[in-house]
Amino acid sequence: MDAASDIKYLTLGGSLKLKSGITFGPITVAYETYGELNPTKSNTILICHAFTGDSHVASHRSGDRPGWWEDMVGPGKAFDTNKYFVICPNVLGSCKGTSGPISLDPKTGKPYGLDFPVITIQDIVMVQKRLLDHLGIKTLLSVAGGSMGGMQSLTWAVLYPDMVQSSIVIATCHRHTAQQIALHEVGRQAVMTDPDWLNGDYYGKEGPKRGLAIARMVGHITYMSQASMERKFGRKLVGKEELGYNISKDFEVEGYLEYRGQSFVERFDANSYLYLTKAMDYFDLTEDGQSLADVFQGVRSDFLVISFTSDWLYPSEQSRTMVRALKANDVGVSYVELDSDYGHDAFLIDFGDQTKVVANYLARVQNDKAGRT
Amino acid sequence: MDAASDIKYLTLGGSLKLKSGITFGPITVAYETYGELNPTKSNTILICHAFTGDSHVASHRSGDRPGWWEDMVGPGKAFDTNKYFVICPNVLGSCKGTSGPISLDPKTGKPYGLDFPVITIQDIVMVQKRLLDHLGIKTLLSVAGGSMGGMQSLTWAVLYPDMVQSSIVIATCHRHTAQQIALHEVGRQAVMTDPDWLNGDYYGKEGPKRGLAIARMVGHITYMSQASMERKFGRKLVGKEELGYNISKDFEVEGYLEYRGQSFVERFDANSYLYLTKAMDYFDLTEDGQSLADVFQGVRSDFLVISFTSDWLYPSEQSRTMVRALKANDVGVSYVELDSDYGHDAFLIDFGDQTKVVANYLARVQNDKAGRT
Repeated sequence: MDAASDIKYLTLGGSLKLKSGITFGPITVAYETYGELNPTKSNTILICHAFTGDSHVASHRSGDRPGWWEDMVGPGKAFDTNKYFVICPNVLGSCKGTSGPISLDPKTGKPYGLDFPVITIQDIVMVQKRLLDHLGIKTLLSVAGGSMGGMQSLTWAVLYPDMVQSSIVIATCHRHTAQQIALHEVGRQAVMTDPDWLNGDYYGKEGPKRGLAIARMVGHITYMSQASMERKFGRKLVGKEELGYNISKDFEVEGYLEYRGQSFVERFDANSYLYLTKAMDYFDLTEDGQSLADVFQGVRSDFLVISFTSDWLYPSEQSRTMVRALKANDVGVSYVELDSDYGHDAFLIDFGDQTKVVANYLARVQNDKAGRT
Repeated sequence: MDAASDIKYLTLGGSLKLKSGITFGPITVAYETYGELNPTKSNTILICHAFTGDSHVASHRSGDRPGWWEDMVGPGKAFDTNKYFVICPNVLGSCKGTSGPISLDPKTGKPYGLDFPVITIQDIVMVQKRLLDHLGIKTLLSVAGGSMGGMQSLTWAVLYPDMVQSSIVIATCHRHTAQQIALHEVGRQAVMTDPDWLNGDYYGKEGPKRGLAIARMVGHITYMSQASMERKFGRKLVGKEELGYNISKDFEVEGYLEYRGQSFVERFDANSYLYLTKAMDYFDLTEDGQSLADVFQGVRSDFLVISFTSDWLYPSEQSRTMVRALKANDVGVSYVELDSDYGHDAFLIDFGDQTKVVANYLARVQNDKAGRT
């Protein structure tokens, strides 16, 4: 079986009323599953990926391509696929199988481009809900995710309180701040001012490669920490023994950013970059003017909230704000600030404590559930 | 007298041997002066501007255009021009009067563009030294600056220890870190991948306006703090009552960044952006492999080091590193971490405590000097 065939596709019947008010369809969802659904359908864990992730959260077998949370998901791992049925869908608006701007518009037979509707984290979650409905899954043992994945996890707990038993919310926030919006806007402007963006209608042409690479370079700086960049690169030179005294690259960190920018361009669609950053910037659980404590009033899930000491993109204070609002509702919350100097990337690469914390938490959730039944 | 005539120009005789080894000339320096040089020529304060600054540190008279440190420099202010002779030169490589890539190459009659040599903070300081030599000034009561200006102040104390009596070093570092280099490199790549950059030979043409605006947007985010952006903008919308659900701007912070990017393009040269960011990235007082304490061994100046609590671009820890190395040499150092949530911009806009600290420090320096003579 080749890797591609591990991706399953579901095309939802009918259309979906999006948060914008627009009715949109058809929508195809790409997803991967791991482990077995038990007879009572009570062992499902939904894992929500971050910004540029996909449904491939882990390898399916020996020799398979590693997934983006390979160290967290698999037999005997924190998300133990011997026990749990793990499902990971690609998000709406992305370019990894689920409908997005690069998908073909059935009306024209061409990619949607900017005709794709602007979507929100709630829309992403609603599509996931439809997928689970189709699979006949009525309860989720847990909904887990970091960064944009954490926003989805939060939204699940608020939108579908009767369905979610526990929420694992990592390195994220309940609403984007001005600085978080600003960092995304730089990336969007880099893409949209690239002459090859062509108002989003660049498919089959060159595409805004320069702008998208710049956008990704900004992103990478925000995903790392001052300390992790210093340890990894410091002032090491790239391909030279001494400073070049010309306008080209001198430092290894410059070469690294170029490499990350270029490789991103090969694997991600520029319009999806615009749409998903917008979805994150729109994200604000308190948008209706309610306090966050009020928003969490109906929540019935138990929570594990994790942040990382050196994450300056989604700093711990944002997690503590959520924890306070959950506690105000007497919701069960375990909050752990993990010591890591990997910055925001820690949720994707720093697994020592994260693995133990998640494994122990899920064991407790299962025990609590067993005690109740 | 019109404002422009307050700028004085000096063309240095002969050439200067730059740090790169290249001999370069002629070099013109633009500078402005405030107050009167006393008969013993002992009351001079050299003020060094930051990255995109210029020689206009303050207005010269009522109705004159305010300078970039208007609240700090003038009669009765911290840098009291009733007492001190203040001189502020535009830096080498800039585009505000001193020789830079936009200056005409006498060999071709056209702007240098990339034929301008890559320069360093030391080269900038050497040019300032030549200017002071020309003016017959042999001692500096103080050399003061923030950010890139602070790098110049540090370099003065190390290169010309017999000439500098005190050094005021604000919101800066003794060497650029990987993160600081990375943030600059994103800006440089935004400029250099703009098709209108034309390998630096864009004068008289459109120029890399889009890329330079993107670069400046990144810069502005790093100059502010999370808190100051949140207070100023939060999630306020721009020109609309509710989210637009399209790919254009929604938030005030997005409009602000665009405005700052666009206005920067009107006032700054893209090649100067490349050259001056490079000069800062090259800056490393320990580049010869010495410890910073060793580098400061010959320093005879007294120091005032100031950092700001919310400055994440040049965090206080970098100032404390310098203070420790100065103290290791028994150099007199006053270190003040000022409480401000304005981020790196604080040195340009948050004057309450900064003004008092600088005024008191200069009074002490003058008293000490009087006590010695």
